[in-house]
Amino acid sequence: MNLPTQVKIVEVGPRDGLQNEKEDVPAEVKIALVDRLSAAGFANIEAAAFVSPKWVPQMATSRQVMDGIARKPGVIYSALTPNLQGFEAALAARADEVVIFGSASEAFSQRNINCSIAESIARFEPVARAAKEHGIRLRGSISTAFGCPYQGEVPLAAVSDVVARMRDLGCDEIDIADTIGVATPRHAQAVMAAAIAAFPIERLSGHFHDTYGQALANIYASLELGIAIFHSSVAGLGGCPYAKGATGNVATEDVLYMLNGLGIDTGIDLDQVVDAGAYISQFLGRKGASRAGNALLAKRAP
Amino acid sequence: MNLPTQVKIVEVGPRDGLQNEKEDVPAEVKIALVDRLSAAGFANIEAAAFVSPKWVPQMATSRQVMDGIARKPGVIYSALTPNLQGFEAALAARADEVVIFGSASEAFSQRNINCSIAESIARFEPVARAAKEHGIRLRGSISTAFGCPYQGEVPLAAVSDVVARMRDLGCDEIDIADTIGVATPRHAQAVMAAAIAAFPIERLSGHFHDTYGQALANIYASLELGIAIFHSSVAGLGGCPYAKGATGNVATEDVLYMLNGLGIDTGIDLDQVVDAGAYISQFLGRKGASRAGNALLAKRAP
Repeated sequence: MNLPTQVKIVEVGPRDGLQNEKEDVPAEVKIALVDRLSAAGFANIEAAAFVSPKWVPQMATSRQVMDGIARKPGVIYSALTPNLQGFEAALAARADEVVIFGSASEAFSQRNINCSIAESIARFEPVARAAKEHGIRLRGSISTAFGCPYQGEVPLAAVSDVVARMRDLGCDEIDIADTIGVATPRHAQAVMAAAIAAFPIERLSGHFHDTYGQALANIYASLELGIAIFHSSVAGLGGCPYAKGATGNVATEDVLYMLNGLGIDTGIDLDQVVDAGAYISQFLGRKGASRAGNALLAKRAP
Repeated sequence: MNLPTQVKIVEVGPRDGLQNEKEDVPAEVKIALVDRLSAAGFANIEAAAFVSPKWVPQMATSRQVMDGIARKPGVIYSALTPNLQGFEAALAARADEVVIFGSASEAFSQRNINCSIAESIARFEPVARAAKEHGIRLRGSISTAFGCPYQGEVPLAAVSDVVARMRDLGCDEIDIADTIGVATPRHAQAVMAAAIAAFPIERLSGHFHDTYGQALANIYASLELGIAIFHSSVAGLGGCPYAKGATGNVATEDVLYMLNGLGIDTGIDLDQVVDAGAYISQFLGRKGASRAGNALLAKRAP
């Protein structure tokens, strides 16, 4: 079985990661983090969310961040946009990609936004149309695709269905997320295969959480299927909102360590990512959650 | 590719794990831990080491532990035996299996015990002969098979060679250890394949460390080869002696979570393992190092 020779890592720490941090992180720290990440070689960084600051105060600095970063040519800086108002703000902030989202779990959709999956995706139609009109990349993010805190199992047909809806909205890339980190490798392959059935594999990505320590095994299993885009978060930024004290996003350093060992090209310098992780962990006043990051930092110590 | 339908987990926390803990753990705590683990369903528990208490003070209680545990019929309680004196002590303590050891790295062997790999294995001949005479199971443990802190890469031929030497001593089971946790999945497969070339696969085990977060991916990759025995340590007991602050043994709870998700039978109850991990972590006064363990404990909290 041949693995992909190249993989794109979407670094989600500055948005998806920090959004789950309680401590307010000032714009200048976020800017320094994003700039360290682009310097390390990431081609795609999730940097902002244009959402109501009432709901997500941590993201209130999104415009400042987008204005303050040193744009590196070729890098895609993504922003979450829940509605047309968010899209307009992302446009004004010169986001290269906007991200819309939905769930693969009916129970999750109903509990979180009081509507069905189909209704929630349909609500993004104006955002999708506007993105196309302005020639901005559109990403669809699908949560709880591997399991749901409310309904438990999520049918594979539901995954294919929501991927098809995202595809029909014109998404350029779609990520399949294990929001609560419950997937194990063969189930991960089954879910990714259900997504592949509805969308071109080269534009599909896996967003795995390390809540139960399974993320790298799931990424390896997804590589075996041919998936070549993965999300990860520097220093493992972002806890799991459904289990206090538990881990959330898989750490970028751990993913890179594996990809490097597998001989897969990412264009990213692991040492610089370790530096970026140490930078933000120091700001947050704690040890980073990346095992590879911590081991490499320990090796550097005299 | 079919995975094994049954897997044996060798729980090494009470010996390999605790040996690396600085705080002295009294015999009664070790006994309670071993008994919790046998009750959880492990068929093989590394419980003792009959080594010089001058060198490894934590293991000075080994006889007390072996005398104090509630032997569960069918469970193999293993003991590390560096020499004939250790073997005699293990015999007196009624160990079901004795463990001899060697390295796959010449540099590691020279730096640690001032002799070649071949010489170090040959020194175990009297122990191996005595084990056979007394009808006691003999396990060979091969360290630094995936990488060495001194020489870096370890040739695959060196792995096959030391496995063959252990086989010729009459080992019933041989474990291949990633002492410094540097393996990634395809390299893990190559090393395990080199071992399979010299020893029956059904008696070979993988001992992976999570120093760089790679252990579960390596275990999954080894399952794909057909390896069906793995070592792990409850609550991830045992740091990595080569990188302070870094993780050592892969946590049993994480391994079990994956095997359960893969539908692989282990005969072990994950909830009881989580309890055992919470018990020893509480004694050590810290949070356990198992991600699945911590997530499951967080879910239990009201």
